[in-house]
Amino acid sequence: MTELKLERCRIAVDAMGGDYAPKNEILGALAAMKEDKNFDLILVGDKEKILKIAREEKIDLDENLIYHASQIIGMSDKPTDAIKSKPDSSIVVGARLVKEKKAHAFVSGGNTGAMMAASTLIMGRIKGVSRPTIGASFPTTSGDKKCIVFDAGSSVDSKPQHLFEYAILGSIFSKEMYGVQNPEIGLLNVGEEESKGNELTFATQKLLKDSKLNFRGNVEGRDILKGTVDVVVCDGFVGNVILKFGESVLTLLKTRIRNYADKGMLNKIKALVVKSVLKASLSDMDYQTHGGVPLLGINGISIIGHGSSSPMAIKNMVLRAKEMYDKNLIIKFEEALKAYAI
Amino acid sequence: MTELKLERCRIAVDAMGGDYAPKNEILGALAAMKEDKNFDLILVGDKEKILKIAREEKIDLDENLIYHASQIIGMSDKPTDAIKSKPDSSIVVGARLVKEKKAHAFVSGGNTGAMMAASTLIMGRIKGVSRPTIGASFPTTSGDKKCIVFDAGSSVDSKPQHLFEYAILGSIFSKEMYGVQNPEIGLLNVGEEESKGNELTFATQKLLKDSKLNFRGNVEGRDILKGTVDVVVCDGFVGNVILKFGESVLTLLKTRIRNYADKGMLNKIKALVVKSVLKASLSDMDYQTHGGVPLLGINGISIIGHGSSSPMAIKNMVLRAKEMYDKNLIIKFEEALKAYAI
Repeated sequence: MTELKLERCRIAVDAMGGDYAPKNEILGALAAMKEDKNFDLILVGDKEKILKIAREEKIDLDENLIYHASQIIGMSDKPTDAIKSKPDSSIVVGARLVKEKKAHAFVSGGNTGAMMAASTLIMGRIKGVSRPTIGASFPTTSGDKKCIVFDAGSSVDSKPQHLFEYAILGSIFSKEMYGVQNPEIGLLNVGEEESKGNELTFATQKLLKDSKLNFRGNVEGRDILKGTVDVVVCDGFVGNVILKFGESVLTLLKTRIRNYADKGMLNKIKALVVKSVLKASLSDMDYQTHGGVPLLGINGISIIGHGSSSPMAIKNMVLRAKEMYDKNLIIKFEEALKAYAI
Repeated sequence: MTELKLERCRIAVDAMGGDYAPKNEILGALAAMKEDKNFDLILVGDKEKILKIAREEKIDLDENLIYHASQIIGMSDKPTDAIKSKPDSSIVVGARLVKEKKAHAFVSGGNTGAMMAASTLIMGRIKGVSRPTIGASFPTTSGDKKCIVFDAGSSVDSKPQHLFEYAILGSIFSKEMYGVQNPEIGLLNVGEEESKGNELTFATQKLLKDSKLNFRGNVEGRDILKGTVDVVVCDGFVGNVILKFGESVLTLLKTRIRNYADKGMLNKIKALVVKSVLKASLSDMDYQTHGGVPLLGINGISIIGHGSSSPMAIKNMVLRAKEMYDKNLIIKFEEALKAYAI
C-alpha cells in the first residue's frame, strides 16, 4: 500500500491563531522545519505583523514563507458567522489552501469552533462521513500504548451511525499512526455489561457488533487510562468533558505540589524531586507532546491546537500533520469507509 | 434550624457486600464506632459467617450487633432481579431496616446497581424527586474546596427536570456537608458560552436561570478540578464516566512512578520521595478518604461504596452517614424541594 509521493508535502500554519500568536507560531513552525526537512512551510497571516514580530524577536524568517491573510478570527468570535464575515482570515485562507491543493495540511491554535467549521465546510467531508470527528490521545498504564477517544468534542447529540463512523476512522488512525495491527474498539459506557447504557449506546452496540471492526464491547471511564482498548468511541459531549477534565489533572497536580513546597525548606527540596520525576514519567500526559487534536473525516489534514499553544506544541502539531501526510491517512480513510459501508 | 435529636442514630452496614466482605466491613464498622460513640451499629448479614470470620481474624465482635440476613446479592447479579429473588439478602434487609425506621442509614460496598435499586424502591423517593442522584466529590485547586458532581451515575438519558432537581439536592448537600453558604451551581457543558451545548443543556439552562438557585452558567470539564463552582450538574452517563476516569488517574500515576522506580537505585529513592509527597498532597483524591458516594433524593441515608472497599473506606462511609444524620439532611432536602418547586 505504500505509494510513491510525487509531490513535496506543504503544511500551512495559522500564524495568527493562538494567544501568543504570531510569536509561538513562528518559533514552533521553524522548529518543525529543523527537525524534518521534507516539507514546505506556509505561514498564513498578516505579513506586516508577522515580519514585525520576527524582527522584534530577532527571528530569522524568510518572508517568502508567508502567505498573506488580512483578517483574524478572534477567540470569542462566533465560528460560523466569523468564517462567513471574515473570508480573508488566516483560518479561512488556510483551509482554502488545502481545498485548492496548495497545501496538504493546515494547523492552527486559533478559535477551535472556527477551525472545525472552516475545515469541514471548505475542505469538505470524505464520502461516507456524516460528521467529522476529533480524536484525543490519552496515555495509559500499559506502557507506550495510547488510547484514542473519538469524538472529543467535534459535535454533540450524536446518532449511532456517527459513533460507528468514528470507530472506522479511529481504527485506521490507531493502525497507521500508532502501528496497532488490529485496533481494539470499545464503546464508552457506564458499565461493561451489555445491559448497561443509554439509548445511544444500546443502538450503537448493535451496529458495532454486526460490523467487521474489532469491537470489544463496552468500556468504562477507567478503561481509557488503563488502555483496555486502542480506540474508545463516544458522543462528543462526553469526549470533550473527559479531554478537558484530563488536561486539568496536571494542573491540579502542579498546584498541590506547589502548595506542598510552600510549607518549608525540606518540602521545597522534595517538591523539586517530585517535579523532575513527574516530568520524566508523565510527559505524554502533557498536551504539548502531541500538540493538538486532529479533525478526521475531511478531505485534508487539519489539526486543532490549544489557544495557549507553546512553540513546542506548535512544532509537534506540524510534525504530526507531516506524519499524517506521509502515512497517506486521507486515502486510507476513504478506502476503509468504502470497505465498512453498510 | 438545629433540632433536638430524640433518637440515637442507628447505622446499618452491609457486612456481606464488597470483595473482602465480611472482614473489611467488620473492621471498618468497628473502627467507625471507636471514632464516634454516638451511634449504634447494625451489621447486616449471615450471622454464622460473620462470627466465624471474626473468630478467625481474632476480632472482638459482640454478636448482638449482627442482624441476620441469609442471602447475598453477588457482584454480577442483575440488580432488579436480585432484589426481587433475594428478599433476605443483606442489601434488601438493610434497605428495609431504614424503611421500617429501625435504622437511619445504610452503607454497602456491594453490588452498586442492587444498592441503588433497593434504596430507591424500598426506602422510596422524597416528594418532588423524580430520580435519586449520586454525588461524587472532587478535590480542587482551590484549597480545601470540593466540587460535587451530580449525577455521577445513578441514571442516564436524563431530562432537564432531573438536572434541575440534582441542582437543588446538590446545593443543600454542599451547604450542609461542606459549609458553603450559597453554593454556586454550574451546568456541565462543552463550552462556557450560552450558545454551546446539546439538547439537554439548552433546556436545562433555561430551568436553572429562571430558578432561585445560585446558577453560574455553563462550566467545562476542566472546571471540576479547578473548583470554579461548588456543584456541577450533568447527565449520569457523563458523571459516571468522569468519576471512573478520575479514579483511574491515581492508578496511572502510581504505575508510572513504579516504572520509574524500576530503572535503577537512584530512581527508586526518588520515587519514594514522590510517593510520600503525593500521599501528603493528594490524599483527598483517594476514594478511601470519603469512602463512597451518597444516593440522594430518597427517604433515608444510603451510601454506596467500592466493591474493593478497604476497612478505612468502610469506616469513612459510616462516619459520613453519621454526619448526614446529624445534619438532618433528609429534612433539609424535603424543605428545599418544597421551596424550589415549580
